[in-house]
Amino acid sequence: RGKKKHHRIIMNGNLMDFLDEPFPDVSTYEDFHTIDWLREKSRDTDRHRKITTKSKESYWELIKSLLDAWSGWVVMLLIGMLTGTLAGVIDLAVDWMTDLKEGVCLSAFYYSHEQCCWTSNETTFDDRDKCPQWQKWAELMTGHSEGAGAYVLNYFLYVLWALLFSFLAVSLVRVFAPYACGSGIPEIKTILSGFIIRGYLGKWTLLIKTVTLVLAVSSGLSLGKEGPLVHVACCCGNLFCSLFSKYSKNEGKRREVLSAAAAAGVSVAFGAPIGGVLFSLEEVSYYFPLKTLWRSFFAALVAAFTLRAINPFGNSRLVLFYVEYHTPWYMAELVPFILLGVFGGLWGTLFIRGNIAWCRRRKTTLLGKYPVLEVIVITGITAVLAFPNPYTRRSTSELISELFNDCGALESSQLCDYVNNPNMSRPVDDIPDRPAGPGVYSALWQLALALIFKIVITIFTFGMKIPSGLFIPSMAVGAIAGRIVGIAVEQMAYHHHDWIIFKNWCRPGADCVTPGLYAMVGAAACLGGVTRMTVSLVVIMFELTGGLEYIVPLMAAAVTSKWVADAFGKEGIYESHIQLNGYPYLDVRDEFTHRTLATDVMRPRRSEPPLAVLTQDSTTVEDVETLIKDTDYNGFPVVVSRESERLIGFVQRRELTVAIKTARQKQDGVVSSSVVYFTEDNPQVAEACDPQPLKLRRILNLSPFTVTDHTPMETVVDIFRKLGLRQCLVTRSGRLLGIITKKDVLRHMAQMMNQDPESIMFN
Amino acid sequence: RGKKKHHRIIMNGNLMDFLDEPFPDVSTYEDFHTIDWLREKSRDTDRHRKITTKSKESYWELIKSLLDAWSGWVVMLLIGMLTGTLAGVIDLAVDWMTDLKEGVCLSAFYYSHEQCCWTSNETTFDDRDKCPQWQKWAELMTGHSEGAGAYVLNYFLYVLWALLFSFLAVSLVRVFAPYACGSGIPEIKTILSGFIIRGYLGKWTLLIKTVTLVLAVSSGLSLGKEGPLVHVACCCGNLFCSLFSKYSKNEGKRREVLSAAAAAGVSVAFGAPIGGVLFSLEEVSYYFPLKTLWRSFFAALVAAFTLRAINPFGNSRLVLFYVEYHTPWYMAELVPFILLGVFGGLWGTLFIRGNIAWCRRRKTTLLGKYPVLEVIVITGITAVLAFPNPYTRRSTSELISELFNDCGALESSQLCDYVNNPNMSRPVDDIPDRPAGPGVYSALWQLALALIFKIVITIFTFGMKIPSGLFIPSMAVGAIAGRIVGIAVEQMAYHHHDWIIFKNWCRPGADCVTPGLYAMVGAAACLGGVTRMTVSLVVIMFELTGGLEYIVPLMAAAVTSKWVADAFGKEGIYESHIQLNGYPYLDVRDEFTHRTLATDVMRPRRSEPPLAVLTQDSTTVEDVETLIKDTDYNGFPVVVSRESERLIGFVQRRELTVAIKTARQKQDGVVSSSVVYFTEDNPQVAEACDPQPLKLRRILNLSPFTVTDHTPMETVVDIFRKLGLRQCLVTRSGRLLGIITKKDVLRHMAQMMNQDPESIMFN
Repeated sequence: RGKKKHHRIIMNGNLMDFLDEPFPDVSTYEDFHTIDWLREKSRDTDRHRKITTKSKESYWELIKSLLDAWSGWVVMLLIGMLTGTLAGVIDLAVDWMTDLKEGVCLSAFYYSHEQCCWTSNETTFDDRDKCPQWQKWAELMTGHSEGAGAYVLNYFLYVLWALLFSFLAVSLVRVFAPYACGSGIPEIKTILSGFIIRGYLGKWTLLIKTVTLVLAVSSGLSLGKEGPLVHVACCCGNLFCSLFSKYSKNEGKRREVLSAAAAAGVSVAFGAPIGGVLFSLEEVSYYFPLKTLWRSFFAALVAAFTLRAINPFGNSRLVLFYVEYHTPWYMAELVPFILLGVFGGLWGTLFIRGNIAWCRRRKTTLLGKYPVLEVIVITGITAVLAFPNPYTRRSTSELISELFNDCGALESSQLCDYVNNPNMSRPVDDIPDRPAGPGVYSALWQLALALIFKIVITIFTFGMKIPSGLFIPSMAVGAIAGRIVGIAVEQMAYHHHDWIIFKNWCRPGADCVTPGLYAMVGAAACLGGVTRMTVSLVVIMFELTGGLEYIVPLMAAAVTSKWVADAFGKEGIYESHIQLNGYPYLDVRDEFTHRTLATDVMRPRRSEPPLAVLTQDSTTVEDVETLIKDTDYNGFPVVVSRESERLIGFVQRRELTVAIKTARQKQDGVVSSSVVYFTEDNPQVAEACDPQPLKLRRILNLSPFTVTDHTPMETVVDIFRKLGLRQCLVTRSGRLLGIITKKDVLRHMAQMMNQDPESIMFN
Repeated sequence: RGKKKHHRIIMNGNLMDFLDEPFPDVSTYEDFHTIDWLREKSRDTDRHRKITTKSKESYWELIKSLLDAWSGWVVMLLIGMLTGTLAGVIDLAVDWMTDLKEGVCLSAFYYSHEQCCWTSNETTFDDRDKCPQWQKWAELMTGHSEGAGAYVLNYFLYVLWALLFSFLAVSLVRVFAPYACGSGIPEIKTILSGFIIRGYLGKWTLLIKTVTLVLAVSSGLSLGKEGPLVHVACCCGNLFCSLFSKYSKNEGKRREVLSAAAAAGVSVAFGAPIGGVLFSLEEVSYYFPLKTLWRSFFAALVAAFTLRAINPFGNSRLVLFYVEYHTPWYMAELVPFILLGVFGGLWGTLFIRGNIAWCRRRKTTLLGKYPVLEVIVITGITAVLAFPNPYTRRSTSELISELFNDCGALESSQLCDYVNNPNMSRPVDDIPDRPAGPGVYSALWQLALALIFKIVITIFTFGMKIPSGLFIPSMAVGAIAGRIVGIAVEQMAYHHHDWIIFKNWCRPGADCVTPGLYAMVGAAACLGGVTRMTVSLVVIMFELTGGLEYIVPLMAAAVTSKWVADAFGKEGIYESHIQLNGYPYLDVRDEFTHRTLATDVMRPRRSEPPLAVLTQDSTTVEDVETLIKDTDYNGFPVVVSRESERLIGFVQRRELTVAIKTARQKQDGVVSSSVVYFTEDNPQVAEACDPQPLKLRRILNLSPFTVTDHTPMETVVDIFRKLGLRQCLVTRSGRLLGIITKKDVLRHMAQMMNQDPESIMFN
């Protein structure tokens, strides 16, 4: 099964390769292979050494070396600027197209509802979203804006636009860039850990993902733009890498840039540069040296400021749901906050299990063969169910924004329909606690329905063949639950000031409970349950509110939700998808605690044929060619002789192939019976009639990584993880016994955890 | 020289060992040795495995295993609470004792100046710091508060108190805890990288450092409490480690706790929990897994909230210099900000060079023999020069606070003495730009003198035998320079509104330049120049202002200052002190780019005697004992035989010593001529008269780390760094050639960088 999938994906990969270089040279890796971090690092050091030496020769070389040293910062600047611009364009386009489902601006068709009424002179402050220039479709077509007929027409057109957008999105993805679907974060995690997926971060993917992301979000499906924005940012990073050979020719250096790009992506998604850097560090990156920390921070800042210059929301904030609260929180409120944490953990578990089960079904049944139909059906269901409920009809980020907001004096929303004190002629700025009005009660019912709807539909939406992030839907689920709890606590406090739990901090007339804060805590809890982030999550939320004040509630909810969710299964949604897709990902967080030794994992096993090795001075060219033909190993150990089996080095399959091919073509006297020498000394040709020997010491890696057969696997796992090895040779008292590849390690870990070891993708 | 120093420090170490356990058992390390991270990690996994297995046996064991799993969070909670409390107590005590130098509160002697006048009814809002209860010393003694006599008496008593405090501080350090001196951060960096310095984080050091820190800061010396607070927090961490065998018996796990404690220390020093975590990550820690990230964040938050509950500054903020600005910054202002960055970089270089030169002189000349006298003399000079200038007389953090502050309408300080528009009857809230009054001009002169004074005296102060941090003095230097530049730009803008650079953004009547922001940017630049932090520095400053708004100026200044300072020397002050003291610290940031191989570094060298090895079945007990007596290596490789030299394992010196001693005492028939066997099979005793053999396979490490002699040193350095090795064996085609220890690596790196290789402390 693994083999078949491999080929299918390769086919997909080829589809979009036409924009990338067609033939990788010897120094690059093949598609779906893992890179050797140590080798990449030492290649970069060589390059650096060469430039430093040269720079002393002339001024021109000195300038070149300075440019080289600065290229990292230049790449970051470019990534930040492009990511910020794309995020701004996406925000503006989504805004316009979401409103297009409901109506159109007569003064300028490219204006969104809000922009349309801004520019109008007839807009009053009380009715900010009503102006004659903005017309709903029914009004425009029939002239009637009220009545059942207009409602049905609006409903019909809403569904139609949604279907159109999602059909366009899925078709574009299908035809032009299959890799543009999903959130992309599982794949980016895998790529950053050292896996090669050609085309995943290509120009074509960038273009299609940006366009289809706008379409998918506008279609009203239960998905967000945050995850895909990280993918888009990484595509930008990859794009700018190709400008500098320092990054384009070194897979290790390239990954440093991509880590920083991921930070820039989150930075613009949430307007949280520090949170973005921590997200990249905590969630996405594999190798994150300090240099990358600084550069990520720079890229994240540039991206945030570019976005702010574009100012897509017209409020000089980076996100739609920036909030400021005016009331502190109290110790007793930690109880509902922790309950929200528990809810978040349970939601995380439910979502991960449900979504993975559905995705597995998609992979194994006929369902997977009709991705376009699936998207159309889900969009249809979503649109039909979403329209009647005002909380699901609007875009999810607007919903979150309203739920987070504190009910100020001027708030006209249904959620703020409290019964005012009759003594007050009109609401004042400082609002004491009030009983809920009928609007709040009807809002509660609608929110409860919206909650159930969002919970169910999100499980089926994530993983379809369109760009889809799950930050926003998860946050929406948590925000709805949190707001409901918040209103409940608020009303309880109003009606029962004398209860012991309220007595100390909530006197009558005091504004003591902020339902908006509960919504935010709920959002953090749900997001934490799904992704298992903690620090970056709290920092992102902290940057949204801008106050140290609310860190404790957020932290309490995030940690509770992580613990609850961890109790049901250690893996977050990204790790689950990595596993589902069988990517060879060595998680830094998995602790390997079993008592196995290297000898239990290495190949060849007892029943298998002996290890394919070369000897240093007794293998002929023909032997080598047969070995290359008969096996598909990435490389071969070289030993002193078959008897002593003392290891002297390791030779890469690709380099061996190229070296023999070149020698056959260009070197006279090299024939099939020529002996291949890996020794240091010149081979002594015994007789003149012997064929010319082929010396290949220069392609021999004289420092292969070795462990003894008694090394505990936990140490081996640690070594693979920290040094980013591809393979490691196993010896006993200097004798070569076998080899352990990254794939063997992953397979062994999966076996030990009773998972399906066959699902790991071809390495 | 290295040897001698070693012994001196050990002696100091013994001085304070009376609170620690007297005899380390076999599993712990000796003083001034490096730990083996891989070994510690695998010991912890063993322990964990044991607990997990046991937990299935009974409910009691299950509860014990849960407690064990939670102990990490409990330790964090305790550390946070104690660190926060200590920081609060230190703040309160410093506040009181600093004011004690000038006068006393008659209503309650333990009130500081501010508290004294708060509690008084006779304090008016305009003269917040004048009340009859607070009397200066001259007033109290002679009854006159004005006049030359009173000034001289106050001056004299100010100097006297300063001398008393600093004498007490240096004496306490000398007598009770020599390790309590300095900032402690270089040593903590070294300890976290795996070095053992017994007593450095002991209870006694904690107690004395807390007390002497208060004395040292109160004495008015040019030093801060931030660095020592990190040391205090780490001592708390070490203290609570001893409650749980999980941490006290495992040096690796202990270091995870200490990393988190360092974050808590910075968190309370600056009121910046996120900045604290990033400081620990960027600056201090060596091994920082994600788990530690979460826990550090928790500890930092708990510490911050404990400190806020104590509320030492009475403003419900965590720091004295929390600020909020009301004016945005403009692009053109980047020019002065970058100039401040250049100034910061130059100051950093000057400070590091000057301070290191002075510290080296202290080490090598007679000066080092009279630490008490040195402290007294420097305190005397500081106090005598500081008193006449109002900006140096007060405590440095108050100075920084005033320099950071925006000139609001109600500000009465000299720095805010602007000429008001005669049309305005009294200052209003929104202040347009105004010409500077005479107060500002005299303040400028005093600030310029204070700047020179601080620059010179700080170089001589840091490194004396009292607790001394350099964050606050560095920030003060930058804040003074920044404020001066800020006022200059402000006045230039006022007088030359028509200049091209001001034209676009600074119209007459607009409040366009905030001198306080310049002070903050200058502080960040100078701190960055000295410590070379970037991200954590910007985040700390960001948490002080609480706005994304000013990140770009801060980032520009911090990065410029780092680049400028790096151009003159790559090392920050902590790395320089580590090098000066010769600690075996393998910096993660140093890139090793030389072309040497393992064979160039390994011992034995060509001229040296062959490597001391044991054979697996032909060494006698006597041979082993002789080898142990004649050499001082930490361990010995075991080979198959002296002829083949094929490596089979490595045995620790300590374990070998203990095993032979025990065998001699308890095992019958083990005599000097007994053969020591490391083989797996039972040795075949040829004749009955042969002595009983001694089997020692159980103490043999069968998976020693090996590299080949052709491995490039950059790879070896990487392996040592990432895996935290103590030593590594060098082989060629399975034959043992030599050994490389961490000390060899450090010595080689120092040689390659043309430094004094002999200064590296005994390993």
